[in-house]
Amino acid sequence: MKLSIRFRAVWLVSALCILCAPQALADAPLPSWKDTATKKAIVEFVASATNPDSDSFIPVPERIVTTDNDGTLWAEQPVYFQFMFALDRIKAMEQDHPEWKETEPFKSVLSGDLKKVAASGMEGVAKIVAETHANMTQEEFAAIVGDWLATAKHPHTGKAYTDMVYQPMLELLDYLREHDFKVFIVSGGGIDFMRVFAEEVYGVPPEQVVGSTGEASFAMRDGVPAVIKEPELNLVDDKAGKPVGISRHIGRRPVVAIGNSDGDLQMLQYTTIPRSEADTTPRLGIIVRHTDAEREYAYDRESHIGQLKVALDEAPRRGWLVVDMKNDWTQIYP
Amino acid sequence: MKLSIRFRAVWLVSALCILCAPQALADAPLPSWKDTATKKAIVEFVASATNPDSDSFIPVPERIVTTDNDGTLWAEQPVYFQFMFALDRIKAMEQDHPEWKETEPFKSVLSGDLKKVAASGMEGVAKIVAETHANMTQEEFAAIVGDWLATAKHPHTGKAYTDMVYQPMLELLDYLREHDFKVFIVSGGGIDFMRVFAEEVYGVPPEQVVGSTGEASFAMRDGVPAVIKEPELNLVDDKAGKPVGISRHIGRRPVVAIGNSDGDLQMLQYTTIPRSEADTTPRLGIIVRHTDAEREYAYDRESHIGQLKVALDEAPRRGWLVVDMKNDWTQIYP
Repeated sequence: MKLSIRFRAVWLVSALCILCAPQALADAPLPSWKDTATKKAIVEFVASATNPDSDSFIPVPERIVTTDNDGTLWAEQPVYFQFMFALDRIKAMEQDHPEWKETEPFKSVLSGDLKKVAASGMEGVAKIVAETHANMTQEEFAAIVGDWLATAKHPHTGKAYTDMVYQPMLELLDYLREHDFKVFIVSGGGIDFMRVFAEEVYGVPPEQVVGSTGEASFAMRDGVPAVIKEPELNLVDDKAGKPVGISRHIGRRPVVAIGNSDGDLQMLQYTTIPRSEADTTPRLGIIVRHTDAEREYAYDRESHIGQLKVALDEAPRRGWLVVDMKNDWTQIYP
Repeated sequence: MKLSIRFRAVWLVSALCILCAPQALADAPLPSWKDTATKKAIVEFVASATNPDSDSFIPVPERIVTTDNDGTLWAEQPVYFQFMFALDRIKAMEQDHPEWKETEPFKSVLSGDLKKVAASGMEGVAKIVAETHANMTQEEFAAIVGDWLATAKHPHTGKAYTDMVYQPMLELLDYLREHDFKVFIVSGGGIDFMRVFAEEVYGVPPEQVVGSTGEASFAMRDGVPAVIKEPELNLVDDKAGKPVGISRHIGRRPVVAIGNSDGDLQMLQYTTIPRSEADTTPRLGIIVRHTDAEREYAYDRESHIGQLKVALDEAPRRGWLVVDMKNDWTQIYP
């Protein structure tokens, strides 16, 4: 209902603009972005892509934007927030699982020994995911995630996790949508996890969220239909999995891709590298670089989370914009 | 560009209606539908779901429609059109595969012995799919399908396959969209196959097409990025696979589901059966029943394609509308 009114308002405003003042929407875009070359390049790309008289004009249906989530739309340190959720869930479920006190990786989760949890590797992570993300319906999982998001606090900032989104990125998504770009999230994070908050926090509806996906099955339980989340993975929507997720869920190539790490390298390549000499549609690759140790975090080549190395080296050659959080943004969180 | 103008027009018309005459859109809907109880039920559902003062009001983001394709939006006799495509492809590729003359199921395809092809079972189908639907990029496949659709003719009617869509269903999709319903195709057909024509023929963009899906992989070929279609299946989007496809691609429960066969049973159940007593959102299930041997085909319980038996028996109990093509539609094809 809230969204409905918002949509209707955007609609009405947009329609009035068509009738009277088409340039109104372009007034003072991206207020939390400093007037640097980065902002200028974004505004120029959008102006040109939406100008029917420009050689760079992109028809509305082709205006597909794919953006990463962790480290691109919200923070990802000291570990991915979804991992914090899984650890909190293990703790919350402890009393029903006395055996976890003696079983890894649960034992280390409960004792707070995250190094040992990490040492349990993919096998350990799979066990945690199976206990916290599977054997329930999508709706049951969504309710659990919603409760967690409403109460959990980030260990460094004390903020709610959904308050650790980047204000300049919220503005960028709005700006693109105002110009008829359709924004999809394409993230290594869990698709069902992100769908719980993406609509309210980012304005991205569930059907435009692509993420790592588990197997699922349909069942009638006491005459009531349900889709049950299974523990096996169907798609790891990271690295080379991102173009696969895009082709599966969207079915056409984006014109804008936004990421922050080497996990986004293939999505940036898939979006921006011309297929042939005849392929002249303008495309924009954007990398959000974490350069602000004071207001957020500073990390790239050596980070264990959100490592940015290969994509950073490739950026100049590909013409990808590198956003410098410290110098391009007046503000980090809303 | 074409769509862009169309979107803009719908937008403008809708906005003017908000400003001046909200009821204008409701004038003479569904012209190819006779004034029967079926049409009345559809119009009443939409009127009530979009009336903010009604208890049955559905907020815009929740107005998700899922519709089957084969036998629901276009014909499916004497065999699924995508199967005709695969057979034609085998014939077109024959000269590069002299070994097919001696290998089943290709030998039978080439000799036109479709009974023997059918007898090769799932294993035979998998071999045909691997040769005709895999080991190429999504774009290469789309080009091949596009060429085929532009030239192939249906064996009974001599029409192009994309001319064998149901005019009343095109009107229904438009009618729903005019009332801010978002229409997704959810079909057992191949997702990449349907995406080639769904936007132009049905007004359904690629990102709103859900179908049976193959595995895929990302590769750089001579420095050019590509998503390659693989022969293995990732999702069979039929029967119990339909709610799984819906949960994966859409992430929320539809309010309207439309099908024509037992392959749609679980989608109809998933969409319409209340989850609890508190679940009072109105939902509509529609079954298109093939009753018109003269203008189209007449088949249901005993058909080898599009069998409709369990869902037909369940329809009265669930309140699903059964469309009688002969008596509810003034016209079949455009």
